[in-house]
Amino acid sequence: MSQRITGVLSPVVTPFKADLSPDAERFVRQCKWLIANNVGLAVFGTNSEANSLSADERMALLDKLVDAGVDPARMMPGTGCCALTDSVRLTAHAVKLGCAGALMLPPFYYKGVSDDGVFRNYAEIVERVGDARLQIYLYHIPQVSQVPISLKLIERLLKAYPKNIAGTKDSSGDWNNTKATLDNFAGDGFDVFPGSETFLLAGMQNGGKGCISATANVNPAAIHNLYANWQSADAETLQSGLDKVRGVFQKYPMIAAMKRAIAYWSAHEDWATVRPPLVRLDAAQSKTLLAELEECDFSMPGLKG
Amino acid sequence: MSQRITGVLSPVVTPFKADLSPDAERFVRQCKWLIANNVGLAVFGTNSEANSLSADERMALLDKLVDAGVDPARMMPGTGCCALTDSVRLTAHAVKLGCAGALMLPPFYYKGVSDDGVFRNYAEIVERVGDARLQIYLYHIPQVSQVPISLKLIERLLKAYPKNIAGTKDSSGDWNNTKATLDNFAGDGFDVFPGSETFLLAGMQNGGKGCISATANVNPAAIHNLYANWQSADAETLQSGLDKVRGVFQKYPMIAAMKRAIAYWSAHEDWATVRPPLVRLDAAQSKTLLAELEECDFSMPGLKG
Repeated sequence: MSQRITGVLSPVVTPFKADLSPDAERFVRQCKWLIANNVGLAVFGTNSEANSLSADERMALLDKLVDAGVDPARMMPGTGCCALTDSVRLTAHAVKLGCAGALMLPPFYYKGVSDDGVFRNYAEIVERVGDARLQIYLYHIPQVSQVPISLKLIERLLKAYPKNIAGTKDSSGDWNNTKATLDNFAGDGFDVFPGSETFLLAGMQNGGKGCISATANVNPAAIHNLYANWQSADAETLQSGLDKVRGVFQKYPMIAAMKRAIAYWSAHEDWATVRPPLVRLDAAQSKTLLAELEECDFSMPGLKG
Repeated sequence: MSQRITGVLSPVVTPFKADLSPDAERFVRQCKWLIANNVGLAVFGTNSEANSLSADERMALLDKLVDAGVDPARMMPGTGCCALTDSVRLTAHAVKLGCAGALMLPPFYYKGVSDDGVFRNYAEIVERVGDARLQIYLYHIPQVSQVPISLKLIERLLKAYPKNIAGTKDSSGDWNNTKATLDNFAGDGFDVFPGSETFLLAGMQNGGKGCISATANVNPAAIHNLYANWQSADAETLQSGLDKVRGVFQKYPMIAAMKRAIAYWSAHEDWATVRPPLVRLDAAQSKTLLAELEECDFSMPGLKG
């Protein structure tokens, strides 16, 4: 097994054209900008509107990225779908391309399902993909998926598939859960990524491997800077700076707000486009968002539209 | 526009082989049995594990059904997905085949989305499918989808697309909501189907058009009998009989329990198979379920495995 992926990753926002089709060229440019800012590519996450894309659309975008010379060792695409057959297809495709890992939602349509059922989903994916290179990162985001990844489930999966269950993204926003995950499993070669840079410093102090955060789409360099310097004397100050920027975006619907900021700093209005059921920020929201960001001396240097 | 579909419809349970692939032949036989029992085919609903199937798997099954000579005028396939592109593809396919309607979930990954966003989803589907034959049935099942179809949204959609917004399935289990939907829209050519036969009689008494119910998979003739005789003197008695059978199934995870019953009465064990994240009934559950059904003098005459 090659070295595991670590550091700061971005659930890359997906650019759409005015007709709502994905814009592969802008996607490649955005990913290259993130890589240049030392941020890895957790493409097809919640913030990527991945579930608003068909399986074919996701695979075509991933192919474009690899074809454009972006290193798959820096990629952890989201491949967990409601349908087992979709999850297997997307995961096998990602592994075949050489992606570092696959970030995997549980099937999220049915609610109140048992750990047995969720275990069986991941077990079938591991068995069907059947590739020693497969590195699964379990995606815990119960406030959206409504299907939690329990500590008991992690334990059971790690025991059954120690070579394929590589880690987790904990987007619960519940530090107690992240801490318990770190305490229980970080010593077993299970890599824990908090789902927000809010917990980047605390995570690193407790054996975490970085973070996978929405705001890494817009503030990549500063977040990576804390990751690289978490043991330095000014780590707390760096963390406060990150929290301030995130606090502004969090006042708004996050995905639409990040796309608005990217549209502004890249001077490419199509960036503001979201697929339904999301809606873009209205004019008043856009104005206050940009004003608040300018107040923080926020900008997105080097961004191209 | 041809006559709208009415009566009792079943969200047909999907048969899987031991390897979890759909069994098209058994699916066709089951659908023909339902039709013979006067029940229409709301294939690819919640009880069909439709979201556990890929878009291609759904389309292949629907093609098989039509190829086998089952009348598409008796079909209302589920076509609402998280991804707009999947919803458009499945819906266009169903319309092209001549299906009576499409039962459409809202995109269900993101929670707390606005009515504007959900409106935009349905509007895009209507515009992109662009076929006068399209009859959309809005699927309200908030306890699962977590994305409700509000009365205001129905009003707005009906106003924008009066020829394409045909009705709703209300699976909320909240009679007050079903009644309000009937009171507000049943006079406008908007067809309301309660999502359970529990409300079949009350629905018919208030302008409903039938029901689309899980248990129509296992108890079709009796449910149709109440539909056909809702104005008769013994309608209340018929309703009580239906409630008794449903009450037994409701004690168990519904989909696994129905598949267990079908496996038993068809003598085809593969019928008990479910895709993850669901799990089949265990031996003890299976035993008590079948005992309780026999106590009700329940059986499934004419069923083939």
